[in-house]
Parts: sequence; C-alpha cells; structure tokens
Amino acid sequence: MKRSNPRALPAVALALGLTLAFTVAGTPAATAQETGSWTIGERVVPAPAGASEELRAALAAAPAPNVAASRQQKPQSDEQWLMLQKATANANLDQLASGLGVSIEKDEIGDVTVYRVTPEKVHPRHAEHLFLHVHGGGYVMYGGDACVGEAATVAAGAGIPALSIDYRMPPEHPFPAAVEDVVSVYKHLLESRSAKSIAVGGASAGGGLALAAVHRFIALGLDVPGAIYAGTPWADLTKTGDSLFTNEGLDRFLVAYDGLLKGAAELYADGHDLKDPLISPVYGDFEGFPPTYLVTGTRDMFLSDTARTHRKLRAAGVVADLHVYEGIAHGEYLALADSPESKDMLQEVGAFFNKHLE
Amino acid sequence: MKRSNPRALPAVALALGLTLAFTVAGTPAATAQETGSWTIGERVVPAPAGASEELRAALAAAPAPNVAASRQQKPQSDEQWLMLQKATANANLDQLASGLGVSIEKDEIGDVTVYRVTPEKVHPRHAEHLFLHVHGGGYVMYGGDACVGEAATVAAGAGIPALSIDYRMPPEHPFPAAVEDVVSVYKHLLESRSAKSIAVGGASAGGGLALAAVHRFIALGLDVPGAIYAGTPWADLTKTGDSLFTNEGLDRFLVAYDGLLKGAAELYADGHDLKDPLISPVYGDFEGFPPTYLVTGTRDMFLSDTARTHRKLRAAGVVADLHVYEGIAHGEYLALADSPESKDMLQEVGAFFNKHLE
Repeated sequence: MKRSNPRALPAVALALGLTLAFTVAGTPAATAQETGSWTIGERVVPAPAGASEELRAALAAAPAPNVAASRQQKPQSDEQWLMLQKATANANLDQLASGLGVSIEKDEIGDVTVYRVTPEKVHPRHAEHLFLHVHGGGYVMYGGDACVGEAATVAAGAGIPALSIDYRMPPEHPFPAAVEDVVSVYKHLLESRSAKSIAVGGASAGGGLALAAVHRFIALGLDVPGAIYAGTPWADLTKTGDSLFTNEGLDRFLVAYDGLLKGAAELYADGHDLKDPLISPVYGDFEGFPPTYLVTGTRDMFLSDTARTHRKLRAAGVVADLHVYEGIAHGEYLALADSPESKDMLQEVGAFFNKHLE
Repeated sequence: MKRSNPRALPAVALALGLTLAFTVAGTPAATAQETGSWTIGERVVPAPAGASEELRAALAAAPAPNVAASRQQKPQSDEQWLMLQKATANANLDQLASGLGVSIEKDEIGDVTVYRVTPEKVHPRHAEHLFLHVHGGGYVMYGGDACVGEAATVAAGAGIPALSIDYRMPPEHPFPAAVEDVVSVYKHLLESRSAKSIAVGGASAGGGLALAAVHRFIALGLDVPGAIYAGTPWADLTKTGDSLFTNEGLDRFLVAYDGLLKGAAELYADGHDLKDPLISPVYGDFEGFPPTYLVTGTRDMFLSDTARTHRKLRAAGVVADLHVYEGIAHGEYLALADSPESKDMLQEVGAFFNKHLE
C-alpha cells in the first residue's frame, strides 16, 4: 500500500491540528528545549466530573498525593524490606470470604503456597474454568493471606473459581523465584485440566507477572492459557512509560516512581537486566499469546505500560481488549469496591473470560 | 452475583495499593482540599522514551506548548471566525493526491459539497465499501479543500474509497447544520448502497460529528452504518473530561481548552444545550450503535472523551475497540505521517473496517 510522503504532511496536519494556525502566529513558547523535555507549570486539577460520584467522593475524602514524601519512601535495608513484607501480609480471610460470598482455603501445590477461592454462586459457564491469580504489590508486598484479596473479588464478581499463588518474594527470593512458582503451579494444573480452561492474571506486579509467566510458558513449550487478565500491569520495571511522568502526583496510589517502586524494581531484579522480558514483559515477543484483557485509568501511572502492552499484543495479531476508566488511578477500579467502575470492570472481565475460556 | 461490602475494602485495597501502607505513616499531604481539587506542582516531562523515534524527534524539534498564550487564542468576532475559517480552508489537492496515490474529485450531493477519494490500489475486500468522512477542526476550521486530508490518508492507508463531507460551519451555519449535512449525504448514499457497506468517521470534531450523526440516524429510523471510526472524538463540548485538565500543556496540538476550543464550542452550539447528544454525543444513548473503533494517546486532551465514549458503547453492549498510543497528543497519530504510530493506526482502522463492513 502506498503511504503518504513528507510533502503531504501539511495538509494532513492542517486537517487535524486545531491550534496549528494559531501556534504559528502565536507568542514564542516559554520552555522550548532541544531534547523534547518540557517543563509543565503548576496546575489545579478538579475531581473528574465525568467519573462516578463514588470516585469523586473518595478523591474529596482523601488527602492529595504528596509527591515529595512519596519519592523518599523506600526501605533502606533487607531488614526494612522484610518488615514491609510482613506488615502487608495480613488479611482477615473470614471477613473477606463472608463479605464477598466465597470460601477461601489455604493449600500447597508442590512447594508453593496457594489459596483456593470458591464462589457461593459459580456462573454456569465457569463451572470448569479457573482464574489463576498472581497478586500485586511491587513483587515485595501483599503476600501471605493478603494475596487473595483480588482473586476473591474477581471470583465473586465473575462467578469463577480462583487459585491465588503466594509466590516467593525478595529480598529472600528475588527474580526468577516468582516466575518459577507460577510455572510450577501452572504445570501442576495442566495435569488435570486443559490450558484453555485457565485464565491467568492479576493487577500491578500481578499483571506484569502474569504476562511474564506466559512468556515463560511459551519458551517452555507449554500450552498457553485461554485468557489473560492484565490489570494495570507493571509491564516495564524501567522508568520509561510516559504516564510515570505525566501522571505523577495525579495517581493517588502510586504517586511517584522514584522511591518505593524504583527500589522494588531493583530489589526484585537482583542484578538481572530490567529489560529481561521475564522481568519487564513489554519487551518480549507476544507471538502466540492468548486473548488478553487490559484495564487502566486516565490517572494511572501505568496507563503507558498498559497501552504499550496492548499495542505489542495487537502488533503480534493477538486478540487484546483495552479498557480505560475516567479519572481512575492505579488499581483504583478494584480498590473502590461497589463503585460503578469496579462493577463494570468485574462484568467486563467476567464476560471476557466467558468468551475466551474453553 | 453477591458483591463485596465495605468491610472487605481494606483487604482488597491492601492487595493493590502499593503505597497505602506508606501513605498512612507518611508525612501529611501539602495540598489536601475538600473538593478533591488538587494542585499539581511544576514538573519536567521528558520525551516519551517508549514512543517511536519519529515522535521523539518531532517533540524535540517543536516548541514546547505555550499554555498561557493558547488560553487567549480565540477569534473575537464573527468576522475573525470567518477569517480563521477561510485561512484554514486551503490544501494543495494535486500534491496531496500524488503524495498518497489517490485521486480526488470535488462534487455536490444535493446542496452539500463533497470530495470523492479513490485510491490507486483498492483493497479487494473494500471494493464495495465506502469511508464516509467528516473532518476535524472544532466545527469552525479546515473545511473546503482542506477537509479531505484525513479522508485521503485513510483511503490510501486502508485501500478504501472515501467520500469527505465539506459540511456547513458557524458562524454562518451553526448547529444543527453540520449534522443535517451528514444526514443528507447519508440518505443519498443509502439509495444506491447498503448501510453496512459504509464506515462513517473522522477525527476530533469529525469523530464527535460521526457519533452525533449516528445518534441522529437512529432517531430517524435509518439503518446504521457498518462501522464507526471515532478518532480522538470531541465527544463532549463541555469542559468535563479529566484529560482536559491533566493533559493541558502536554498535548501540543490542543494545548488548552479555554481559548479556541471553548470559543468554538459556544459558536457551534449557538445557544443550544452543550449536553445535547447531537452536540456532545457522549451524553446520548448508544443502544444500537455499530462496531466502533476509537483511537487516542496518553497525551491527548481528548483521552477522556475517547475513553468515556468507549465505556458508554460497551455499557450498551456495542463492539467497541479502544486504542491508546504512547506519548501521542490529539490527532498526532495522523499528523505524524509515516511514523510507526500512524502506520499502525491505519493498519488497525483498515482491519476494523475489513472485519465489520459488509
């Protein structure tokens, strides 16, 4: 197909660039820099009027993100990382189970601790399906009982049984321990069920780990799962995504990259190249990936990681559906339980599993 | 399906919120406000390292957006609006046609001026298809010969014949003239071809107008087209979208809402309610809409309009595919001809038409 040549640019640009005519005649820009690095001045950003009342109320009730403080929030030693790991490993499982209408059982598969979640009401289509869940928390937090929160939410919302993997974490067990644990559980599952009956996924580091694990499944010659749920995936552990900069301080959950996130990336990688596709899955080859559901929000610092992963999947010819929620920060679609955004997301991910699992 | 209750929130939030534990123990935020309105401090945003070299080079070569100047750029009288309309109505059609490998003919359908675009190489699947194009330009610019730029680019890129409508514009012909012109041409087309062979679409105001026109088609009982291309649609002419605020100054094409955009919205609406679904289509009922392809970028001030429209379509059960390009501003995927982003978008929109047109 013949493509446009540079001479055609002005007409096309004219047809689109609303302010081009004005820019040419306008006053000189104040902060032009040769590198394309821009200084963006202070601004006041209101709560998003087009988002749900629940989200706007939550934003009004919460303190504004403190970027400067967030940039400094990082454990300074292995001991401090372990304290953080321990401090975030608790959950009231009875309360979680009764609140969501699920049962939760702790179990072992090989050497790996897992949590089995069974909804009171399993969707008829999902009777033979399984959501294989890997939790978020920057690869360094929210293990132990806390790992099962999202799995239980999705299991209840979509009516699908789930299995959440309490994978090993640094500083004691850095990369590739987490990937190995997912592979180990997955191989075990394949002994008694088809790959296509399994959806693998999670949010944040869990979304990234799910994508990394599928890279590994393919390298090992294992059948790929029937679907992936990549919730605002940490698909790139280097400081590359545009939204890490543009949404700094707008994302009330991640707030800033420098600090905890950067520290967690280095702790997890343990000297390995951060661009290894098993660490930063966006750099991998997505040929042969199963249908993938991706979700993020306009204020998510991982908006770029999510969108870039979507493009890599599409370029490889993979069925990949991207969903972006108005005003939503990193993982907020799940944190705001019972919000319209959360209900909508659970409905969408359930429908996606319904469509693609066998 | 039973849903989580508020008691379950902490565990779920814990499972996702990387910095929650730190936020609790952190220093107080500096700018908490009861309204959820946040003051975001000055920041330096580098060119997006994950975007194409072409985009980064373009950002490095262009002046940084000048928000203060942009906010003041608005014609002050009908005479000035007409001058702007005239100044943006020109294009070198011969150059455009030869550069893209298409032929372009000016024609009339009823009282409406149209431009017929025929690619030298029509994709076999698209021989009987038509891309019915409505141009961007805030409803006040880029009419006349300039209207056909995007139509020609898509026609060449996807190998599909196109028809671009030079719809009437304010100040002489405010709303609903533009919608009426699209309806008039569409009705004429239906006399000789099936609705399902037509894809209607455009970018910016063109994307909004395409969506508004389909609302009108449905109200009139006309068959809906086979597909919609909504390129970074101006789906909401009120200042509502979150990205109007978060991406102000990051979007080098729109730059700021106050100024030209706000002025154009008021001029076009001509006293009608800006939330009329035929003016701001996001507020309409999307039941019965055809499959819709939507595209935007992480730096697009209409990221929110695009994402909100996608959600409305999905909530109505419509097939709707959202695509978000890294670091891309409003309409930049087309303005940067020959960039990987532009090629990818043209391939995607062509494939979408291929899949859904009959």
